[in-house]
Amino acid sequence: MMKKEHGGNIYKKSRETGIPQDRFLDFSANINPLGLPDHIREAIIEGIDEVIHYPDPDCTLLREAIAEYEHVRPEQIVCGNGGADLLYRLTSALSPKTILLPAPSFAEYEEAGESVSARINYYRMGEDLRIHEDVLSGIDQETNLFILCNPNNPTGLLTQRELIDKILAKAEETGTTILVDECFLELCAQWEEYSVVSRLQKYRNLIILKSFTKLYAIPGLRLGYLMSQNTELIDRIAHTGQAWPVGNLAQKAGIRAMQKPEYRDTVLAVVQKELEYMKKELAKLPITLYDGMANYLFFRAPGCTDLDERLLSEGLMIRSCRNYENLGEDYYRVAVRLHEENDVLISTLQNILTGR
Amino acid sequence: MMKKEHGGNIYKKSRETGIPQDRFLDFSANINPLGLPDHIREAIIEGIDEVIHYPDPDCTLLREAIAEYEHVRPEQIVCGNGGADLLYRLTSALSPKTILLPAPSFAEYEEAGESVSARINYYRMGEDLRIHEDVLSGIDQETNLFILCNPNNPTGLLTQRELIDKILAKAEETGTTILVDECFLELCAQWEEYSVVSRLQKYRNLIILKSFTKLYAIPGLRLGYLMSQNTELIDRIAHTGQAWPVGNLAQKAGIRAMQKPEYRDTVLAVVQKELEYMKKELAKLPITLYDGMANYLFFRAPGCTDLDERLLSEGLMIRSCRNYENLGEDYYRVAVRLHEENDVLISTLQNILTGR
Repeated sequence: MMKKEHGGNIYKKSRETGIPQDRFLDFSANINPLGLPDHIREAIIEGIDEVIHYPDPDCTLLREAIAEYEHVRPEQIVCGNGGADLLYRLTSALSPKTILLPAPSFAEYEEAGESVSARINYYRMGEDLRIHEDVLSGIDQETNLFILCNPNNPTGLLTQRELIDKILAKAEETGTTILVDECFLELCAQWEEYSVVSRLQKYRNLIILKSFTKLYAIPGLRLGYLMSQNTELIDRIAHTGQAWPVGNLAQKAGIRAMQKPEYRDTVLAVVQKELEYMKKELAKLPITLYDGMANYLFFRAPGCTDLDERLLSEGLMIRSCRNYENLGEDYYRVAVRLHEENDVLISTLQNILTGR
Repeated sequence: MMKKEHGGNIYKKSRETGIPQDRFLDFSANINPLGLPDHIREAIIEGIDEVIHYPDPDCTLLREAIAEYEHVRPEQIVCGNGGADLLYRLTSALSPKTILLPAPSFAEYEEAGESVSARINYYRMGEDLRIHEDVLSGIDQETNLFILCNPNNPTGLLTQRELIDKILAKAEETGTTILVDECFLELCAQWEEYSVVSRLQKYRNLIILKSFTKLYAIPGLRLGYLMSQNTELIDRIAHTGQAWPVGNLAQKAGIRAMQKPEYRDTVLAVVQKELEYMKKELAKLPITLYDGMANYLFFRAPGCTDLDERLLSEGLMIRSCRNYENLGEDYYRVAVRLHEENDVLISTLQNILTGR
């Protein structure tokens, strides 16, 4: 069984190249470039003594903290060992026969679907790689689950809330569950305009996935959550799999994160300034750059199918998107990092792509 | 969906009773009473800066460290988000139609089996709560998986290696996979005599489960592993579920633990001395005490079905075993803790059970 490879595997790349892990500049994983926030680090350190206890299987305090932040009720929330864990628990709890996925999108959707033998149908986006209204005709009585990543990964493109509203309304007619993955949304400038958290109490078939990974730079701690007004489904997901999926330190870190929501604005300011800078500079290169809105940018380098390998030999990891459904060999994704690091990427890309 | 309740949920008990978490003496979870070892604490602290990276999905260094400790090859090992995670991934990868379980035993076996709609058959142990040779007749062509917990949880009773050898030989004929759960074995005095790790290369149908939770007092970090000579099955389990089940800090802690195997002897000395003391003292009470060999003891307090509740009001948590298959309402399990703590339990039990 071959799983699709993800970005961020510095361990494997280090073994393959012989370059030490800490010598790589990793643009292949989309993590807040400011690194681990002080308040999260403190929460981890303060929590260490508690690892001698089993974690709270119900994540009670964490769910209360998230509920306050999201303005939902704790019983409308289930926490998981990272967002990816929740995708598998969701498909396991729902047992969808048929799943509709936009292509390209995050590979774990497909694999979580395949883990319960669901049939995967694709909404293949055109060259603009956007979801348009014709997606509605793909949602029918046969479609048990539709997963929409907003902003999409790997493209960074946003889908308007008006279209998601139409999808939700259509899905209500067809009995389709809609999972909106907002894991990167809070790193987008106008995230409040795009989020469908405000729609949770309106649509019983809406589930929203969020993660602590990106904003708080803690992919190694593993923490994400699902929300839905359908508490019966949330409870079913909570009781799918082992009793203790979320570790103590992840719970502590998540609680602390929720207590300091203003930290998001700090990250957003840095990320969005650098995003604009990178867009301006990358636009000068012979690539097709997409208008990504999150902390990563997606582009096509026509005909250049070994860009990731060539950057790797310079100590720069980027994400080749050749293993995504509906993408060719010459598509790539790069994370937004700190200014000097981004400059290294830009100038190295310049050298490779223009020979200057 | 109601899951069976486990020991160690100090959060829930604290909410229910209003007693603060740190005021409980928790005898309901079987954790090394010496607490978090210094070297593991250091590994966690040193690892904090790495939580900004996705964890190594392959747990490469950790598997190498375990391989050296266990004298197996890294590809014969798969790591998980605690032992419980691996039970679900094993049943998911194996898809057993029928599972044979000794009763009573660890509740997650049953639930992991039910998660893939397996039929559960029980080998109901007699009053001595031991597995005898008649178990062999229960293993037939229909039995896809047999799970043997050694020492058993909740009883602490050990099964001789000679009998396990017979089970393995029979299972080879019937095509049955045998999972031996040795999560508590290294806390038993003569663990080397009982372990079937030495049988791994002989029996292709043998899988062994081990955990870092008990010996290193890190249930909150979530870390366990499976071993088998069947690398195809190990690989399948490794690719069941999400890409990053084991967090960075758990991997770091596990590597450090393997580098200092002699720590086990320190724990073993304390636990075994206290185990003997508790056995001697508990034998004076009007209970049926079983000859547990690990860091917990199991007993029946005939007719006394509220012993856990009465102890709880004194701030002592013990594990009622009434929700185990094949056990009555008056069975209990208590962990071995430090001497003074054990004395508190013994004298409180004395007061309750003998009125003195």
